[in-house]
Formats: sequence, C-alpha cells, structure tokens
Amino acid sequence: MPLILDPDFGPCATVVNPGGRAGICLVCEHASAEIPSRLEDLGLSAHDRYSHAVWDLGAEALARRMSAILDAPLVVSRVSRLVYDCNRPPKAPDCIPARTERIEVPGNAMLSAEDRAARVAQVYEPFHDIVATTLDGFAVSPAFVTVHSFTPQWHGEPRATEIGLLHDADPELARAMQAAALVEPSVTLNEPYDASDGVTHTLKRHANGRGLLNVMIEVRNDLLSDDAGVERIAATLTSMLAAALSKGADAA
Amino acid sequence: MPLILDPDFGPCATVVNPGGRAGICLVCEHASAEIPSRLEDLGLSAHDRYSHAVWDLGAEALARRMSAILDAPLVVSRVSRLVYDCNRPPKAPDCIPARTERIEVPGNAMLSAEDRAARVAQVYEPFHDIVATTLDGFAVSPAFVTVHSFTPQWHGEPRATEIGLLHDADPELARAMQAAALVEPSVTLNEPYDASDGVTHTLKRHANGRGLLNVMIEVRNDLLSDDAGVERIAATLTSMLAAALSKGADAA
Repeated sequence: MPLILDPDFGPCATVVNPGGRAGICLVCEHASAEIPSRLEDLGLSAHDRYSHAVWDLGAEALARRMSAILDAPLVVSRVSRLVYDCNRPPKAPDCIPARTERIEVPGNAMLSAEDRAARVAQVYEPFHDIVATTLDGFAVSPAFVTVHSFTPQWHGEPRATEIGLLHDADPELARAMQAAALVEPSVTLNEPYDASDGVTHTLKRHANGRGLLNVMIEVRNDLLSDDAGVERIAATLTSMLAAALSKGADAA
Repeated sequence: MPLILDPDFGPCATVVNPGGRAGICLVCEHASAEIPSRLEDLGLSAHDRYSHAVWDLGAEALARRMSAILDAPLVVSRVSRLVYDCNRPPKAPDCIPARTERIEVPGNAMLSAEDRAARVAQVYEPFHDIVATTLDGFAVSPAFVTVHSFTPQWHGEPRATEIGLLHDADPELARAMQAAALVEPSVTLNEPYDASDGVTHTLKRHANGRGLLNVMIEVRNDLLSDDAGVERIAATLTSMLAAALSKGADAA
C-alpha cells in the first residue's frame, strides 16, 4: 500500500485541550489545508491551493476559541479534506473528490483501488480513531459538536444563511441552540445543507451509536475573516451551546 | 433658575429602538461626553475633557449593539455625568462632583443652591422621566439592565475584573447571568463596585418599586476599545441575559 503521509508527519489529528472539563466534545474535520508533499499539491493551481475546496476557512480558529471559552476538548484534523474528507464514509462518491463545486483536482482523478484504500487507512480511520478515543475519555457522555464553515456564494449566488445548525436523526441540540439564538447573527436550522446531502457522517458515526446530543455547526466564512469576527462568533456559539445544554439538564 | 442646556438641545436622553420586542429595558446613564456650551467644558483641561470622569468609554456603543442583538429598547443619556450623574440621587454628595478619582472639575466647585437645582430639574429629572415613560410602554414587566464601563486601573492599580454584575436588593438576575457565564471573559458579582458604593440608584429608582428583575453591568473599558471588542462583549452579554431570562421563565 502506498504511503500517503510523510513518515515523520505524526498523527493525522491533534487533540486540543484534552483535559477540558466541559461536557462537550468539539471536532473540526476540515481544519487543515495540509496536503502531504508526496501528493504534490494534488495538482491544484496556486489560486485554488488554499481555497474552500481544500479546507473550511476560519473553522479551526473558531473551534479553538470555542474550546478555550468552553474548556472543552477539540479534535482538529491535520490533513486537507481533498486528501480524504473525514466527514464522508469510504463508500461516498465524494470522499476523495476529483471535482468540487468549482475546481478539478487532478491528483484525485483515476486513483487505483489501492490508492483509495491507502487514503482510508492512513487518514480516515486514524482520524476517527482519535475522535473515538477522545470520546472514551469523558467520564459522562458529552455533547458532540462539529464545526464547519461555508462560502458566501454558491454557484455565483449569495447565501443569506449566516449560521446553520444541522442535525442528523436527533434534532434536540440543534433546536435547543436555535431557541437560544438572538436577532444577530441569524441562525437557521439545516442550512445551507442538511443530512440528506450526506454531510452528517461524523455525527452518525460517533454520536448516534453512543446516544450523544449532537449538532453540526456551519458558519458563513466571511463572518470568520479576522480575529474579531472569530471572537464574536465564538462568543455567540458557546453561549448558545451552554444555554441549550443547561436547558437540557433542567429538563432531565 | 439658570438654563443649563441650550434651548434647541432637545430631550436629555434618546430612546433607541423604542419598539423593540424583547422583554428587556436597557439604560446607559453615562453614555455621553456632552457638556452644554454655556458650562464652558466645566473648566476641564483638554487632557481630561474626554476621559472616564466625563463618560463611560465604550458603554454607549456596547449598549446600542445589545439593543440591536436583543431587539430591546435602550435609553441613552445625552449629557455628561459631570453635568449631573443620573445614577446618583440629588442628595448624594457626588451627584455633581467637583472632584473625581483623578481630576478637579472647576465648573462644579462652589455651585449655588440654584445652580444645583437647575442641574437636577433640567438633567436628572427629565432623564428619569424618559426611563419611566419607556418602562410604561412595555406590555409585560421587562427586565431592567443598566450598562456601564470602568477603567483598567484605579489609583494606579490594575483591576483584574473584566465584567462585573452588580445587584441592588434583588440578586436574581445578576446570579442567573453569572451562572450562564463561560471561561472567557471572566464575570464577577459586585465588582469593581457594589451597591454599598451608592452606584445602584437607577436600579433602586426604577426596578425596585416596580418589582423588575434588574442588574447593572460593568465592563472594563479596555475590552471595548474597538468595534471588534464591542461586538464580542455584546455577543457574550446578550447571550448571558437571554439564558438568564429564559431560565427565569422556566422556573415561573
């Protein structure tokens, strides 16, 4: 099987604040723009090399601030989603995309079965093993929260959604967070995607089986374009999460 | 009685977002650096003219953002607290201070009884009339929230408090907000002042009699030094308020 990562690359995810005391596990699958050197930038042009196709702009900065404000563990991917999209199962047609909304990815075209198996074995499985191990470390079942960003335009049309809360089978946490939302920034359920778009794999894989409250957060990336924006959105989302979980505790 | 305000000055407070639908009334007594021209800057030096003695730096910007995020009415003073400190009753020795922590205020020294009565009649009473009228406009009793800022140093010593929640006789809202606080920014009850310092006059005058949930918010002004800081603190405080009030509603 071909080696994807350089031998000294280390684990394909970092656990930030592993001892965090909040009952929340944060995950950022699309944090990284890293493409291992032997994949030669997957043939991307310089223009596309750090575009949204490669990573979720601002998502890691947001997730790290949320981790600090909440005192919550955070699993951060260290490999670009174009190498393997850890929020997709190996059977998904777009888990190693040769084409995205806007660009061709030459390094993902015409991969052999062995090439694909190498990406799964060296990126996808180790990433989810680290998530699972992190979840195992909680004394009490945590809420499970993934952090993503999306582009202000889609096929040239502006997107009005500012923050989307996506759920899979269990809408409880997404709805409770929406109930805690204020006038600004606007918060919408299941926009700009929903589970039927196949974007809730990480929730399915880790939260559904363990029965964890869970939500996938999507933030329009122009709201995360500088530190100030990240601070504002982190303050908003962490407060909504805390309010939603505190409600849940009251009801229980 | 001498005229304090210019004849065309208009009301000494502005009501921002008077039709706001939140069950919250915001008040910013120390919003303004305005000193009517006939008071000739109260004899202040250029260095002191826009210092914390004159107004709470950043408090109006913060209160306006909170008003927008919550959709809540906000009463904003249009006259400097050195003309009359609307958060002090006329009997308080520091309601028209001739000296503050750091500076002399020549224009407030040796005022006649008539001068003092003019400040009360033309600034203090109309300000509180506008607050009372705004409260009368709520169909259901609102929470009553005043917004202040304080200096990072006091007599040369740094202050560690970032956000203080001050209460008068009824601690319920302050405590519920503190319970909704996260790791950052830090939130402390009754710091850097408390009711025994005579700083809760507005709460006493309007909230105690009507039985309104109430709190005085104090933010260290270095956290409000630019728009980004204001956005972050506004996001934090509005979420804490919403969480605290939503809890109250559950308990009722």
